[in-house]
Amino acid sequence: MKHAHLIWNEIDAKQVYKCRVFSVRDTTSEAPDGTKNVFSVIDAPDWAIVIPVLDTPAGKKFLMVRQWRHGSRSLSLEFPGGVLEAGESDIAGAQRELAEETGWKAGNIIKLGEFSPNPAIMSNRLHVFLAKDLIYTGKQDLDDDEYVDVEQIPVDEVLKGMGKEPYIHALMASALCLYLALGSGA
Amino acid sequence: MKHAHLIWNEIDAKQVYKCRVFSVRDTTSEAPDGTKNVFSVIDAPDWAIVIPVLDTPAGKKFLMVRQWRHGSRSLSLEFPGGVLEAGESDIAGAQRELAEETGWKAGNIIKLGEFSPNPAIMSNRLHVFLAKDLIYTGKQDLDDDEYVDVEQIPVDEVLKGMGKEPYIHALMASALCLYLALGSGA
Repeated sequence: MKHAHLIWNEIDAKQVYKCRVFSVRDTTSEAPDGTKNVFSVIDAPDWAIVIPVLDTPAGKKFLMVRQWRHGSRSLSLEFPGGVLEAGESDIAGAQRELAEETGWKAGNIIKLGEFSPNPAIMSNRLHVFLAKDLIYTGKQDLDDDEYVDVEQIPVDEVLKGMGKEPYIHALMASALCLYLALGSGA
Repeated sequence: MKHAHLIWNEIDAKQVYKCRVFSVRDTTSEAPDGTKNVFSVIDAPDWAIVIPVLDTPAGKKFLMVRQWRHGSRSLSLEFPGGVLEAGESDIAGAQRELAEETGWKAGNIIKLGEFSPNPAIMSNRLHVFLAKDLIYTGKQDLDDDEYVDVEQIPVDEVLKGMGKEPYIHALMASALCLYLALGSGA
């Protein structure tokens, strides 16, 4: 088997913490040479991120959301996205999050790829979509504790700003990487 | 104050879980309209990721590491990187991780930017570096439970593979996004 010398085998697992957004599991695994260790893994539902692209007379713009983030304790300007609901497909979740957060719907939505948000310590997946042919409905549908400003930002401005405030969301950058790497802007 | 209607104020915080790699804190925050809620935040040391670029007769290649990831339970092919040590600067940590994981040193290392790995639920930062003028020392220095294959992969192959196995590490993609967005490949 290719790369067999790198592959660990999980021999035990138990949940050690749980809250509204994620839980933590201690997993005991064994390396091919017999080395054993316990690794902490965070379990959470899958997430979706949508890159909504608008063709405007002033050029291509991204539809983005500005919101407070409680982990970083800062404002973040990012693509719409969120947690998939139980039993919901990735594409349905992406369409729902886009509509709820921005009040825009996608006439055309394409999956660009899939990541592990952090394969070292997280078990869930991040599904990345490109949304085109956007239609404005004006019907934002936010949670009671969700405050979101919707903004249209020129693509070049986002590219130049990445990795600095307010473009500090790494997972949004991973979505943008797919957009750039796959030549979706072409 | 700009965007003041979006900014929450933290009024209480307490640690509720702790393991070797991270801890969890319950923070109570208040929105400008008086809405209060409790948010779970994961605290961890900062991380660094290094994009090592080799100029070869066959074109530009990335120096990458293939390793087992216990969160995703899969092999991941990614840029070198890891956890900053207490008191260590981001650039020193980046140089150390590059040397330890790959046995290569950077003659030239430049910071490309900084992200929050997940601003919704994580408080730490991810520091992204570009490493050039690489020098081979052959002195990998891995932890006892770390098994890493070092590989040289053509840049185009990485770009085409992003978002599919084995290029599933979202944070590595966020680093690559900076490389692409800032025109570092030029």
